[in-house]
Amino acid sequence: MAKLRGGIDLGGTKVQAIVADERHDVLGQARVPTPTTGGAQAVVDALASALRNAADDAEVQPGDLAGVGLGSPGEADDANGTVGNAGNLPGFDKPVPVAQLLRDDLGVPEVRIGNDVSVATAAEFELGAGRPYRSVLGVFWGTGVGGGIVLDGQEWHGRGGAGEIGHMVVKKNGARCPCGRLGCMEAYAGRRAMEAEARKRHDDGEKTILFKLMEERGRDRLTAGIWERALREGDKLATHLVDRAYSALGAGVASALNLLDVEAVVLGGGMGTKLGEPAREQLEREMQPHLFHDDRPPAVVLAGLGDLGGALGAALLVGARA
Amino acid sequence: MAKLRGGIDLGGTKVQAIVADERHDVLGQARVPTPTTGGAQAVVDALASALRNAADDAEVQPGDLAGVGLGSPGEADDANGTVGNAGNLPGFDKPVPVAQLLRDDLGVPEVRIGNDVSVATAAEFELGAGRPYRSVLGVFWGTGVGGGIVLDGQEWHGRGGAGEIGHMVVKKNGARCPCGRLGCMEAYAGRRAMEAEARKRHDDGEKTILFKLMEERGRDRLTAGIWERALREGDKLATHLVDRAYSALGAGVASALNLLDVEAVVLGGGMGTKLGEPAREQLEREMQPHLFHDDRPPAVVLAGLGDLGGALGAALLVGARA
Repeated sequence: MAKLRGGIDLGGTKVQAIVADERHDVLGQARVPTPTTGGAQAVVDALASALRNAADDAEVQPGDLAGVGLGSPGEADDANGTVGNAGNLPGFDKPVPVAQLLRDDLGVPEVRIGNDVSVATAAEFELGAGRPYRSVLGVFWGTGVGGGIVLDGQEWHGRGGAGEIGHMVVKKNGARCPCGRLGCMEAYAGRRAMEAEARKRHDDGEKTILFKLMEERGRDRLTAGIWERALREGDKLATHLVDRAYSALGAGVASALNLLDVEAVVLGGGMGTKLGEPAREQLEREMQPHLFHDDRPPAVVLAGLGDLGGALGAALLVGARA
Repeated sequence: MAKLRGGIDLGGTKVQAIVADERHDVLGQARVPTPTTGGAQAVVDALASALRNAADDAEVQPGDLAGVGLGSPGEADDANGTVGNAGNLPGFDKPVPVAQLLRDDLGVPEVRIGNDVSVATAAEFELGAGRPYRSVLGVFWGTGVGGGIVLDGQEWHGRGGAGEIGHMVVKKNGARCPCGRLGCMEAYAGRRAMEAEARKRHDDGEKTILFKLMEERGRDRLTAGIWERALREGDKLATHLVDRAYSALGAGVASALNLLDVEAVVLGGGMGTKLGEPAREQLEREMQPHLFHDDRPPAVVLAGLGDLGGALGAALLVGARA
């Protein structure tokens, strides 16, 4: 049997797992909701369950896999096999030995851990929209705004915390970011911050269909799909807040480009993927006035691997050099 | 005779040349004003003259040198041996074949060209304040604000234009930068922009000793020394504008750090070097509220090579891999 790898993308709302072969073809996939209670064990159980379902879908056993990679938010420490400081996951305020727990549960020889945004960027670089380029900035526009950096073919992690593009300052003394700071790009462009602003304005009497759509869909938050629909309906508040997001993304991404001068920007994430080509065009347009080398802007391309990018990138960790 | 190298730092107001030995000890140095008229040939003559004077000072002939390195503003193209797009230098709007002209004039076998900020960063990394670190962000605070990047021991130039930290956006729709764009860090922190703002406020009736000091010193612009003196005298306008500069530097440098997570920031340039330790402390303080990983800020250190850093870095180009 060819060497098979598992990949798990641990998100704030869902766990996406895949089984892929050596050519990175996805043989099986599965998705389960991310537990919001039950502590760290509930999350680890969900990871194992998603992977098991993906293996079923691929008609293999977890034990047949060469290993499993996990892309995770928070502090993903591959050397120690732990994930910690992930405020949105129950029980993950302190480091959890996820690698050991998954090895024992699934009976796989190797479990590797990486940062969710980094592995998604690596996947786009190796297999997706970043393939034609040697240096790439990944911009994952979702609940927050994450960044991944590949320079001359190598991922750059700095001291382990690089890529926090969402917390680049685009407006000194500007809006309050969910991180607590002022004027971060994410304070304007993150889905969570956009939702908070929409809620405040709605409570203050501004008209919008955003929350009606949310109720109709039985959701408790403004998903990317809801924003996309409201835009299509010409909702004024949604249009205003998304334009505000593009303006912040343009300034922040252009700042990153003025510093790094990479060949390409890959736009992904829940919002980026859902809004698609119009988002790509708007980002390109909003970047332009801030680019120092404006006569040769970088390519701006949409992430090519869609929802599976994170899990595919996680699978790439298996067998990679530590 | 040990292998000797020449280094020339071509600045907007002066040309600094050195001759250094293999241990990077400076054996001779000289400085001449940068011509403001006379076209490209006048500039090349000044470069050659500065280097000849430095060789005299070292009691050697230019022909004894293994080569000469030049750190230059604008587009320094080592492969073609040209400098172009340097708006502040007479005759350098189009590429000038500086390497060939200097080789012929000085009779040296090798002339290498690098970007002024890049070579100054390399010098600090190899020989100066950056020596203890593997990844460094150089911040050269002078007429403009330039950035140099060393990642895991390697300079990063992107597609040739990386390091434009002065044009990272710190205030969307903010002040007009000398580059023409809005809200760049340099619009608040560059010496040229600070001078324009001081002049405007002075013309509008604000009290300041800045222009009196300028006249007393027979200068036609507000040098770093004049700013430093005005601060010491407690000049209100100078204090306000320098604080405004620190605030912009803090936001911009923190943004760069959130993206790159390097180990150290090296603060240099005319303003950074002249204001010294208080500037280092203020930058550190103003960065802090914007740092995403605020529990482990990077080291912030002053450039250690002073005025000779650029020329020393230029000399490092000689014999380096193309």
